[in-house]
Amino acid sequence: MTVLTSEQLQARRRRVGESLAEEQLSGLVVTTLVNVRYLTGFTGSNGALVLHGDGSGVFLTDGRYRDQAAVEVPDLEHVITRDLIGQAADRLQGRWGAETHTLSVDAHARLTAATAAEVVAAGPLVERARETKDDFEIESLRRACALSVTALEGVLDGPLVGRTEREVARDLQWRMLDLGAEAIAFETILAAGENTAVPHHHPTDRVLASGDLLKIDFGARVDGYHADCTRTVVLGRADAWQREVHAAVREAQAEGVRALVEGAVVSEVDTLVRSSLDDAGWLAHFTTGLGHGVGLQIHEDPFFAASHDGRLTRRTTVTMEPGIYVPGRGGVRIEDTVLVTTDEPDVLTDLTTELLEIC
Amino acid sequence: MTVLTSEQLQARRRRVGESLAEEQLSGLVVTTLVNVRYLTGFTGSNGALVLHGDGSGVFLTDGRYRDQAAVEVPDLEHVITRDLIGQAADRLQGRWGAETHTLSVDAHARLTAATAAEVVAAGPLVERARETKDDFEIESLRRACALSVTALEGVLDGPLVGRTEREVARDLQWRMLDLGAEAIAFETILAAGENTAVPHHHPTDRVLASGDLLKIDFGARVDGYHADCTRTVVLGRADAWQREVHAAVREAQAEGVRALVEGAVVSEVDTLVRSSLDDAGWLAHFTTGLGHGVGLQIHEDPFFAASHDGRLTRRTTVTMEPGIYVPGRGGVRIEDTVLVTTDEPDVLTDLTTELLEIC
Repeated sequence: MTVLTSEQLQARRRRVGESLAEEQLSGLVVTTLVNVRYLTGFTGSNGALVLHGDGSGVFLTDGRYRDQAAVEVPDLEHVITRDLIGQAADRLQGRWGAETHTLSVDAHARLTAATAAEVVAAGPLVERARETKDDFEIESLRRACALSVTALEGVLDGPLVGRTEREVARDLQWRMLDLGAEAIAFETILAAGENTAVPHHHPTDRVLASGDLLKIDFGARVDGYHADCTRTVVLGRADAWQREVHAAVREAQAEGVRALVEGAVVSEVDTLVRSSLDDAGWLAHFTTGLGHGVGLQIHEDPFFAASHDGRLTRRTTVTMEPGIYVPGRGGVRIEDTVLVTTDEPDVLTDLTTELLEIC
Repeated sequence: MTVLTSEQLQARRRRVGESLAEEQLSGLVVTTLVNVRYLTGFTGSNGALVLHGDGSGVFLTDGRYRDQAAVEVPDLEHVITRDLIGQAADRLQGRWGAETHTLSVDAHARLTAATAAEVVAAGPLVERARETKDDFEIESLRRACALSVTALEGVLDGPLVGRTEREVARDLQWRMLDLGAEAIAFETILAAGENTAVPHHHPTDRVLASGDLLKIDFGARVDGYHADCTRTVVLGRADAWQREVHAAVREAQAEGVRALVEGAVVSEVDTLVRSSLDDAGWLAHFTTGLGHGVGLQIHEDPFFAASHDGRLTRRTTVTMEPGIYVPGRGGVRIEDTVLVTTDEPDVLTDLTTELLEIC
């Protein structure tokens, strides 16, 4: 686990601090654990941050994490307590924001009862800041993606036919850990044959056979950052139907990736990819989301949807993952993790999307 | 993944339904995902349950999970929607409970704005029901624990000296998956030498050496249920200090396990174990919690604490995990997952707690 520098953390806190000023807030009570991690460096399971508009703050955790916090949170006052909410409440003055989109009703009631400050809904301010990745985050995502791709290449070297979905999934996971992942980013989806029609299939004891589609959705985690990648290959020679479906997804996915540039309207990217699948006659079988932000969480803002009229900003990392799923027959998904820049999209999961036929 | 029968699920819903009547509630809006899983069988990432006092109900999820829900949730009306809260709100009449200990302020506001029903804080009713495990849950926990122990025995067969913490942790994880775990229950804590002093150490590239203490806190997940086990061994011959610390923890842990019987007051078990460590002169170095419930969550009610004046009930599964941690020098933890019965405690992680010297 890399420990972040005070400079890196302060830059993040100052950026969120500026957004507090825009909302006329004196500060923000950060209680969403992943947001606390982002702003303090703390990786434990119980912590909070009283964040002032100037980027200064007080970090709160319980006694289990005293030593860990001393290492991970180098530049804030620490309060060690079992009553994070009560101790945070004591430190508020003026008009403060709370993360009411995640804070529970009961915790919110404890907070407001224990402070004289005005507490208002702040909205997902930290989540919005997290959409724009800093250098450390981009480097971590790059490493997680590179390592994931290397692991998949090893698995695709085979042999595959005759092994079960579960065995091959375990093999892939082991390779990611062996290559230096701190963990797998999420439970690997590995589906063969008719199981590829299930978007989020859990690996089973089904034996891989020649002629099967094989869909693998997987990723590694490095320093808290998640890779997310899917490839669908054929074991042996692809038949005409497999080629057609794969080509339709590949074309739509490539169009989607090309559209991931600064300033692109999220809903328009969504429409573009759907149109491509529609032109190919397969839109009715695209039943999942098109993509999502990825970083400290495997699924985070922004989420692609027809209703999202925001624009992509540079330094945002998102997945692009159209698919076609035909119940009882099979399915194809192709997914990359992509860094949005001011120029060309930077595909972090750098691996061909051609239809591979694995002997 | 085993699909639960309608009979198993109805029994759970009826039991929670009875507690609703006691609270004079017409029903409960279940929004805590793990509680939704417990009462419906649904294992996806987005779902809710409108539960009536008679155990009947309506299950809500989004389009991604249409097919999965059809298999996993056999006996309830399904509503497929992107607006779970709004659709749930439409179905309430009378006085309804909400899970305000986990429901966010914003979701709660959407719920109350969209319904004419009275919505009140229900407290953790489902969590309380979950403390008492049914036959399926006990069997799953038993399998998870048995498999975990077998995996550890394999690792302890060695060789160990000369490998890194990370390598041995990966080996253990691979064995659990190979033996049929659906996943690991949590990221394995594996610490050697001075690192054993850190209660929740992340495995590093430190090489295991003769004379080291080796602490391994790990577990497998089976059908959603978590095993939790810790053993501390010595590589080579134990020295006097290692023997003393291990003996103190082992005695305290054994006393704690023996006390895990129906009717025991939680705080008294806590006091008993602390007294044992105090008598041995080591209490100041016991800096973590004594134990916790374990089931669909790795940490769930009840939590051992001096302030918990509740009593243990039969069919509750808890961990018992005292430890001694001496910064800079080393530490020992011994942990079992134990089923509380009307008779003898049933230790599910059935493996000796003697000090093993691994050649």
